[in-house]
Amino acid sequence: MSAAVTISIDAMGGDAAPDMVVEGVRMAHERLPHVRYLMFGDSARLEPLLARFPEIKGVCTIHHTDEAVSMEAKPSQVLRTGRKSSMWLAVDAVQKGEAAGIVSAGNTGALMAVSKFVLRTLPGIDRPAIAGMFPTIRGETLMLDLGANVDCNSNNLVEFAVMGEVYARHVLGLEKPSIGLLNVGAEDMKGNDAVKAAAATLREYHLPIDFRGFVEGNDICGGAVDVVVTDGFTGNIALKTAEGTVKLYSTFLKEAFKSSLLAKIGYLLAGHAINKVKVRTDPRRYNGAMFLGLNGIAVKSHGGTDAFGFANAVGVAVELVTHGFNDRIRKEFDRLKPTEASLSQLAAGSR
Amino acid sequence: MSAAVTISIDAMGGDAAPDMVVEGVRMAHERLPHVRYLMFGDSARLEPLLARFPEIKGVCTIHHTDEAVSMEAKPSQVLRTGRKSSMWLAVDAVQKGEAAGIVSAGNTGALMAVSKFVLRTLPGIDRPAIAGMFPTIRGETLMLDLGANVDCNSNNLVEFAVMGEVYARHVLGLEKPSIGLLNVGAEDMKGNDAVKAAAATLREYHLPIDFRGFVEGNDICGGAVDVVVTDGFTGNIALKTAEGTVKLYSTFLKEAFKSSLLAKIGYLLAGHAINKVKVRTDPRRYNGAMFLGLNGIAVKSHGGTDAFGFANAVGVAVELVTHGFNDRIRKEFDRLKPTEASLSQLAAGSR
Repeated sequence: MSAAVTISIDAMGGDAAPDMVVEGVRMAHERLPHVRYLMFGDSARLEPLLARFPEIKGVCTIHHTDEAVSMEAKPSQVLRTGRKSSMWLAVDAVQKGEAAGIVSAGNTGALMAVSKFVLRTLPGIDRPAIAGMFPTIRGETLMLDLGANVDCNSNNLVEFAVMGEVYARHVLGLEKPSIGLLNVGAEDMKGNDAVKAAAATLREYHLPIDFRGFVEGNDICGGAVDVVVTDGFTGNIALKTAEGTVKLYSTFLKEAFKSSLLAKIGYLLAGHAINKVKVRTDPRRYNGAMFLGLNGIAVKSHGGTDAFGFANAVGVAVELVTHGFNDRIRKEFDRLKPTEASLSQLAAGSR
Repeated sequence: MSAAVTISIDAMGGDAAPDMVVEGVRMAHERLPHVRYLMFGDSARLEPLLARFPEIKGVCTIHHTDEAVSMEAKPSQVLRTGRKSSMWLAVDAVQKGEAAGIVSAGNTGALMAVSKFVLRTLPGIDRPAIAGMFPTIRGETLMLDLGANVDCNSNNLVEFAVMGEVYARHVLGLEKPSIGLLNVGAEDMKGNDAVKAAAATLREYHLPIDFRGFVEGNDICGGAVDVVVTDGFTGNIALKTAEGTVKLYSTFLKEAFKSSLLAKIGYLLAGHAINKVKVRTDPRRYNGAMFLGLNGIAVKSHGGTDAFGFANAVGVAVELVTHGFNDRIRKEFDRLKPTEASLSQLAAGSR
């Protein structure tokens, strides 16, 4: 059996919190019986919920607080006034070593700001990124950044590439993950200055990673590479565009199956197979975005998720802990990242 | 019957040109018998293709040229040396008034550069944009820019919003089209400087357009607004991400229908209904991206399209001509666009 792992939970974060969160922890517990939880939130609401699920009472400890971060709160405001919020206290538990990782379905910007402030970034990393998994024709692809940094320069993109590579190797278990930079075309001359400069660094500095150059939007789901690197603005929009497209397709399909008697009978026979497709493309399956580059494990669950999705986010946090991701990245980053000196050498035209 | 319309065709543009182009013109002719075509390209290849389709010989005039723009050519190089190419000559025919619009499946960057150089932009428009239609749960949505401008400032985005509004009103026939600005969140504080400033202008200057603020990636296919405005980098990636997601879903579906005997029988019964979904989401149906903001009609077909897709692109050009889109935008732009004076007034805090 695996050693005990403790995860801190922002029990008040998410559209349907705290009910959804407690139910999610119950579902996670079924799959991961060795995990313990520190639940931060309003004990008056959490106690009766836990009373409903005696099976998890033993693995959950409630830490009461009255305060919670609203979904609309500005990150800067949370940094000033949110120190007693369930989110802050849950992150703090990781910093103090009481928990190995934190999961929240709350306000993304606030969670990133608090995590950065409390946990700090890993040495050598300028900006943490949000990473998530996409289903593809070949299997799965890791994409980052999904929204932590709306403006990125080329150095940020190079850092994301290195963090993504380490993640794919150590957590996904790929021997030599391939990396692509998201762009509007595959040709060298295409794109904005940041992607062009990042590609030049990744290519010309001969980093020991399998950089495949530019990939396009259709390559994400096409599974052209194992890791897709992009800025947080584009990544967030690509992620949500893909989610919206899946919803459109399944809505059209539902309408089609209702359009004739034959189609209805067809659905009765093929329904089981079609549900498999729904399961494969279910955004809840891919719930749990990793904050990479922090001095501690933090996972963001979709704010609108249900318990099933929240349980998956807990699973992602446990996986990061189990694979000792942060130790790996700390050890590897020096080896992989181009140094300031080498970058200025490159800029001086030493190729 | 509609009056005769003449469209110039870059017969050598596209992966499968010129065969695909001629076949596409034949398909367009079936639907649009009143349209005539000036076909620019290698007559030695075009003559035998036209000989195969006697029904379109009467509406096509071949203009021979040996030269063609390759899909890899740099726009700057085409501007210097491409004056005898089929693409350039086809655009030139519009400038000379010999054709009312031009369609090409060739190199996008080159077509935009040549069109800008030869046709010029409409008065008051700084940057033309590429616009295209998306299928949505409610119907269809216009999105721009899809890749003409990888870097956009807030003024460019405001121009796109105005052009999109005029298009939706006059060509799509919507009375009061709603406009949204693509962003990573709906809240005011979200996003990069360009989208925040563009939203402020569209909101505070009280333009007579129905601006609904920010929309997110999932709102594109969700049909939240009639016109989605974004920069060319993000728009191109969103478009291709949606295409890739549709492909992923249909691949999963195909696999599912093969996974059991019951599913196979189900497919036989529901196949007709499922094909309707394929047709509704078929990228070829949405082929034909409009170049908006030029002093002439130019439509870009996907380079990898087939004849069916090319025929749709021709249809888009004919529609723009028939609705006199450029005259409309010329007349309306002054009324709609915030002036330099009003913008600096706004900047000075006169609200």
